[in-house]
Amino acid sequence: MAGVTAVAFSTREKLERAKAAASSLAQLSTEQKNELLLRIAVDLEARSAEILRANEEDICASNLSGAMRDRLLLTGERIAAMADAVRDVAALPDPVNELLEEWIRPNGLTIRKVRVPLGVIGIVYESRPNVTVDAAVLCLKTGNAVVLRGGKEAARSNQILAEIMASVPGVPDGAIELLHSSSRDTVQELIRARGLVDVVIPRGGPGLIMHVMENALVPVIETGAGNCHIFVDESADFEMANRIILNAKTQRPSVCNAAEKLLVHSGIAKDFVPQIVSKLVDAGVEVRGDLATREFAPNVVPAREEDWGEEYLRLCIGVCVVCDINEAIEHINHYSTKHSESIVTNDEANAQKFLRLVDSAVVYWNASTRFTDGGEFGFGAEMGISTQKLHCRGPFALRELTSTQYQVIGTGQTRV
Amino acid sequence: MAGVTAVAFSTREKLERAKAAASSLAQLSTEQKNELLLRIAVDLEARSAEILRANEEDICASNLSGAMRDRLLLTGERIAAMADAVRDVAALPDPVNELLEEWIRPNGLTIRKVRVPLGVIGIVYESRPNVTVDAAVLCLKTGNAVVLRGGKEAARSNQILAEIMASVPGVPDGAIELLHSSSRDTVQELIRARGLVDVVIPRGGPGLIMHVMENALVPVIETGAGNCHIFVDESADFEMANRIILNAKTQRPSVCNAAEKLLVHSGIAKDFVPQIVSKLVDAGVEVRGDLATREFAPNVVPAREEDWGEEYLRLCIGVCVVCDINEAIEHINHYSTKHSESIVTNDEANAQKFLRLVDSAVVYWNASTRFTDGGEFGFGAEMGISTQKLHCRGPFALRELTSTQYQVIGTGQTRV
Repeated sequence: MAGVTAVAFSTREKLERAKAAASSLAQLSTEQKNELLLRIAVDLEARSAEILRANEEDICASNLSGAMRDRLLLTGERIAAMADAVRDVAALPDPVNELLEEWIRPNGLTIRKVRVPLGVIGIVYESRPNVTVDAAVLCLKTGNAVVLRGGKEAARSNQILAEIMASVPGVPDGAIELLHSSSRDTVQELIRARGLVDVVIPRGGPGLIMHVMENALVPVIETGAGNCHIFVDESADFEMANRIILNAKTQRPSVCNAAEKLLVHSGIAKDFVPQIVSKLVDAGVEVRGDLATREFAPNVVPAREEDWGEEYLRLCIGVCVVCDINEAIEHINHYSTKHSESIVTNDEANAQKFLRLVDSAVVYWNASTRFTDGGEFGFGAEMGISTQKLHCRGPFALRELTSTQYQVIGTGQTRV
Repeated sequence: MAGVTAVAFSTREKLERAKAAASSLAQLSTEQKNELLLRIAVDLEARSAEILRANEEDICASNLSGAMRDRLLLTGERIAAMADAVRDVAALPDPVNELLEEWIRPNGLTIRKVRVPLGVIGIVYESRPNVTVDAAVLCLKTGNAVVLRGGKEAARSNQILAEIMASVPGVPDGAIELLHSSSRDTVQELIRARGLVDVVIPRGGPGLIMHVMENALVPVIETGAGNCHIFVDESADFEMANRIILNAKTQRPSVCNAAEKLLVHSGIAKDFVPQIVSKLVDAGVEVRGDLATREFAPNVVPAREEDWGEEYLRLCIGVCVVCDINEAIEHINHYSTKHSESIVTNDEANAQKFLRLVDSAVVYWNASTRFTDGGEFGFGAEMGISTQKLHCRGPFALRELTSTQYQVIGTGQTRV
């Protein structure tokens, strides 16, 4: 039982158990994995009372309030939503064993490139307990063992959730391991476990991500910050631009795909800036502007140099007037975190230029940056949004939790 | 001119120049890149005398002898071979801008997944100067800037080779940068340059690779060691097994895809072991065996526990008798470096089991492990052989030097 596991084993032992589980997991058929997922969904609902009790203890111990408390809080409804998300993952196609390519060499060797699980995936995350379930089931679906290291505020909630999943009959011993969250030592041991852990995915604030990037000895998928830009080009439809900016800034300002900066073509700044600033202010947004912006909207707070690189994650936006699309692209490539950027324009050549030259994971033409999301992309799930270029970039889910293997079939060939 | 560059700029400045070059490189068409490559080939041949002079200085200064000296040595023929390899790369298909997927969401958004260059690639390598050219042209072909950090024995050779390539008209300033090789500080600066370098690829011995893995803050593609195994199953054709083993062990023992260990099914050990040991000894191979092996071949040196994990890279092999395929797979997954392993068998079920359960980059059925090579796979080139599971695994070349970008095209969509 995972409950016993979490108490009795050291971090090193848990990592070794996960590694041992990985080879059993790699052999499960799609049907077997889906059955386990559906049973996890049932058990999460059946054991709601235990989950709520553990969560209440976390809430009481945490002393959090407001949005932070809400992130930690579980309710019957939220548990049902978690279980439904597990059923959604069960219904998704299984990428494992997919034959990606096959060819025959002149010497008769057949070479096949096949998708295989990554092996052992470490997840380091912060307060939301639903990540425990989301991450574990995406790993299980892809035949990977998962080692979870959540935040200490959610320790009891994470513990019961991991225990419920790990104790489903048929889930291999060690397939879902939860590390202690009381000290940073467990993070350190996880991210330095070369030979036991195949990849670590940090999910959380910039401090957590930086810590993992700087200390990891195992490969990392960086899920980074989003200092997202919207550039309103000279030919933009103002109404469309307003709609996109307000959506990208205000619909959910605390997330990484929210817009943080607005660049406006100098040719329309005089007309465009005052009206969008007024709409943003009406929507409760603090606006910080460069000199040119403040010329057209004198009530705007001056932006400091640091503003251009900052991810506000709240109702605040930096506005900068640029002389043309080239300056916009340059500004973005200089200051952005390479997450998501959008151009609003009716000029197709400019749009293509923007899409080609902006070096970010997702680039938009006439759409809100808020669509950078596995669900919105149609992946049916999301493990995170990668802001690095290696392995995967942008929203990623099941397919990106796999590796590949070459299988070469011969009839005794030797190299000459 | 790169010659001036290498003298005048600090490491940091070279990295910044490379980053600036990356955006120009990303915009070059396939035709433009191929023209540059062909011109590089011409200039390498035209400036042979300069290259040979620089190489002679390296050879004199290095005091190397034997195989090490041979690795460092350039000749007119070797320079011609380098130039031909550059022409081969020019003839290969360009992966950049390939449309990998395109779909339309229910809200009308069109999402396109497109191959793009990685950006700036750092290469840390040891003595062979031809790596300078190989690596630079693969990066140029894929629209990436490259920052090279070679070994100090080849400093003058690398310098003139980099200068010749960088000074071809049309190669953007900073596209091919060479760092000083006199101290480890330049390695350190390169592998920690987050925001400037997108990936580092170490090519060299275990010490170099471990240093890069442990100290890098940027993503790394690990090109690891090869403790490669051959398992001779009960049903194997002895003649085929002998041929594969002798090829994999002796054809080129100093490379990572050479076999280092031989596992023999206990059911055939009595007959198989004595004859293969005698053939190996005849071929000049030192054979080290476990107890059971030595029962059938008493002249064999006892293997120590450390032998099973060691990559000899010379005419030496460890032989171990295993009770069945399961023990063989377990032994391999425990001791191998996850590079290349082969089963020799006439039993298809066992072969499939081996291919499915051995957790290595390349798994073989009835073929020599020596085929793990970009050229032998038909890639037309090779940047290295990845032994990690992230991004790419096994031999890799042009395609793996790219990332992807999502381009999303809308008509004003906002998220609800």
